Amino acid sequence: MPGIIKERLFTPGPTPLLMEAQTRALTASLHHRTEEFRRLMRETLESLRYYFNTKNDVLIFASSGTGAMEGAVTNLLSPGERALVGTAGKFGERWVELAQAYGAEVITVESPYGQCVSIEQMKKRLETQGPFRAVLIQATESSTGVRHDVEALGKLVRGYPETCLVVDAITGLGTTDLRPDEWGLDIVIGGSQKATMVPPGLAFVSVSGKAWKMIEKSKTPRYYFDFAKERKNQSKGESSFTPATTLVAALSAALDYIRQVGRENLIENAALLAEATRAAAKALGLGLFAACSPSSAVTAINAPQGTDSGLIVKELRTRFGAIVSNGQGSMRGQIFRLAHLGYYDALDQFAVVAALEIALVRLGHKVELGSGVRAAEEVYLQRSA
Amino acid sequence: MPGIIKERLFTPGPTPLLMEAQTRALTASLHHRTEEFRRLMRETLESLRYYFNTKNDVLIFASSGTGAMEGAVTNLLSPGERALVGTAGKFGERWVELAQAYGAEVITVESPYGQCVSIEQMKKRLETQGPFRAVLIQATESSTGVRHDVEALGKLVRGYPETCLVVDAITGLGTTDLRPDEWGLDIVIGGSQKATMVPPGLAFVSVSGKAWKMIEKSKTPRYYFDFAKERKNQSKGESSFTPATTLVAALSAALDYIRQVGRENLIENAALLAEATRAAAKALGLGLFAACSPSSAVTAINAPQGTDSGLIVKELRTRFGAIVSNGQGSMRGQIFRLAHLGYYDALDQFAVVAALEIALVRLGHKVELGSGVRAAEEVYLQRSA
Repeated sequence: MPGIIKERLFTPGPTPLLMEAQTRALTASLHHRTEEFRRLMRETLESLRYYFNTKNDVLIFASSGTGAMEGAVTNLLSPGERALVGTAGKFGERWVELAQAYGAEVITVESPYGQCVSIEQMKKRLETQGPFRAVLIQATESSTGVRHDVEALGKLVRGYPETCLVVDAITGLGTTDLRPDEWGLDIVIGGSQKATMVPPGLAFVSVSGKAWKMIEKSKTPRYYFDFAKERKNQSKGESSFTPATTLVAALSAALDYIRQVGRENLIENAALLAEATRAAAKALGLGLFAACSPSSAVTAINAPQGTDSGLIVKELRTRFGAIVSNGQGSMRGQIFRLAHLGYYDALDQFAVVAALEIALVRLGHKVELGSGVRAAEEVYLQRSA
Repeated sequence: MPGIIKERLFTPGPTPLLMEAQTRALTASLHHRTEEFRRLMRETLESLRYYFNTKNDVLIFASSGTGAMEGAVTNLLSPGERALVGTAGKFGERWVELAQAYGAEVITVESPYGQCVSIEQMKKRLETQGPFRAVLIQATESSTGVRHDVEALGKLVRGYPETCLVVDAITGLGTTDLRPDEWGLDIVIGGSQKATMVPPGLAFVSVSGKAWKMIEKSKTPRYYFDFAKERKNQSKGESSFTPATTLVAALSAALDYIRQVGRENLIENAALLAEATRAAAKALGLGLFAACSPSSAVTAINAPQGTDSGLIVKELRTRFGAIVSNGQGSMRGQIFRLAHLGYYDALDQFAVVAALEIALVRLGHKVELGSGVRAAEEVYLQRSA
C-alpha cells in the first residue's frame, strides 16, 4: 500500500452510505411484530411517498430492485397478454426477459445502446399492435446513462384504460424529476442502494389506482411479490413476510435526511454533478456515450480511442480507491460510468475528475491537468450562484 | 440546504476518523480489569512503539495531548530548575505557560510566528545559561505550519547528561520522520486525534532511559500524570486509573491499519499532500505562512491581501462542508490551515483545493480555475511514479 487510499464508490449502486442511516440500523434491534416496528414501517412508507412524489400506495419488499420488477410483471400481466417494452440497454433487456419468463407476449421498441427509446415508435406500436396490458421502460437506463421521456410516455398510455405504464426508476428516483400522479406512471420501482443512500436489500414500488384494477385481473401465479396482499398488510405497518428490519430503519433515517435536503434539491444536486461530469469529460477530450438526453443518475463516458475502459477503471481503483463501473455486456471495455445518485457532493465530483485526469496521463494520454476540474468548477459556479 | 454537502475535517485535529477503528470501539464492551483488556493494552503499547519509531517505554493517558505535556513538565522539572523553551507559535507558548505554572525557571528562544526556532540560538543558551533540566519544543508547530529541526536539537542535548529533550510531536508523529532513539528525543508526546485517526481523548508519551533517571529526581507534585507509576502498571497492561477503553480499542485498530500502510508510507503520504497543497497555494497566488521548513502536518496559507482568512474558512465551511482552521491568536484572520495528518488521501486534497478555488472566486479574487488542482496533480505525479 503506497499510502492512504480511501475506498469511494462512484458506481450506480451500491452508492455511498449515509452514516446517520447506518447508525440508525445499528441500533434497530426491532422485532417486526411490534407496534414500534409497525409505526416505523408506516412512517417510512409515508416518507417514501414524499420521495416518490406520489399519493399512490407505496410498498416495500425485502429484495433487490429486480424483485419488484418481477412483481410488476406477475401482478399486472396474465400469460399471453401483451407487454410493450421500450429497451435501449441492459435493464430494458431485463424487462423483456422478465415478461417472457412469465409468458407475456413481448413487443419491443428497441434503440441501440446509447440512444433513447423512441416515444414516437412506442406510440405507433400502442396504436397498431395492442391491446397491451403493460408498457415497460426505464426512467434512466443505468447501463448507458440515458434518460427516457417517461412524461411523454405516461401521457400517451393514459389514453389506454386497460394499459399500465411501469417505470423502472431504480436509478431515476432522486436524480430525475418524476411526477407519477401528474404523468400517469402507474407502477414506479425503486431500490434502496441508489439515491436513498442505504445498502442493497430493499425494493420499493408505487402502484396507482388504475394499476390496482389491472392487478385484480392478473392470473399469473405469485406469492412473495403479491402486491395486493402486501398493500393490505403494509397499510397497517405489517408485512406478509419477515421484513429487513434494520434496512427499513436505515431507510427511514435516510428519508428523514432527504426530507431535510429536499427532494427537489437532491435531484438538482445530481443534475449539477452530472452536468459537471459531462463538462469535465468534454474538456478532457472524452465523448459521452449517451447520444440523446443524458441521465443525471450516471454518466457513461467513452474511453479514448484504442484504450480499454477497463484500464481506466483499474487505474482509478488501484491508485485512488475510486470504484467506477465498466460498461456492461458489449459496452464492456468501451465505456466507464460515474454515478451521481444519492450521497455525492461537489467535492466528490471534483476529486474523481482529478483522479481521472491522472489516470489518463498514466495511461499515456495527452491531457491538460486541471482542465477537467476547471470545467466541473465552472458548471458548479454557474448552477449554484 | 442547497443539496448534498458532506462534512469533512481538514483541521489539524480532530482529523477524519478511520471507520474500521470506530467500529472496533463500538463493540469494545470491555472491563479494564480483565486479561482481555490487559492484552489489548499491551498490544497497543507495542504498536505505539512502532508508530513512535522507538524502543523506549510508551505510556497512554486518558487526556488530551496537553495532559502529557503537563506530565513531561511535572515528571522532569523540580521547582526552580531551568527549562529552555524553543517557541515560535501558540504551542511553544504552551510549553512556557506549563513550565512556569510548575515553578520552573524558563529561558526562551523565540522566533516570530512563521519562523523556525533557531537551533544555533538554542545551542548558545545551552552553553551559556544552563544547567537546564529540560529542553522543550514542538516537532511541528501546528499554529504556523512550521517544522523544527529536532534531529539537530537532539544531537545537541545529548551532550548534556542532566538535560532531557522533550518533543511535543502531537502533530509531528505520523507526518514527520522522527527517530527518538537515534536522535535522542527523550520524551516524545502524541495525541489520539491526530495522525492516528481516532477521536480525541488519549495522549501518548515515550520516555527514554535518560529521562527515567531525571524523573526519579523530580520533586514537583504529580498524581494523575505520574510516569513512573504508569510505567509500572502499563508494563502489565494495567493502568493506575480507569483507561478510556473504547478509545484504546479504536487506537489499536488504527495502529493495525497504520502497520499495514507502513509508518514510512504514512509519513510520505502526508509529505506528498503537504507538497501538493503548497504547490496549489502557489499556483493560486497565495503565500505560505511558513518562512522556513514547512511541516507536512499542516499547511498554513496566507489569505490574499485585504481578505480576512475567516471569510475563506466560512466559504469552505458553508458551501462545501470543508472544515479548515483559521489562524490562532494574532494570526486569526491572516491565515487558514489545511491539515494532512492521518487519514487523508489524494482525492481529499484535490477536492479541497478545488473548493478553495471556488471560494476565492466567490470572494472576488482572480483565480484561474483548475490551476491549483493542476499543480497538486503535478506533485502527485512526480512523487508517486
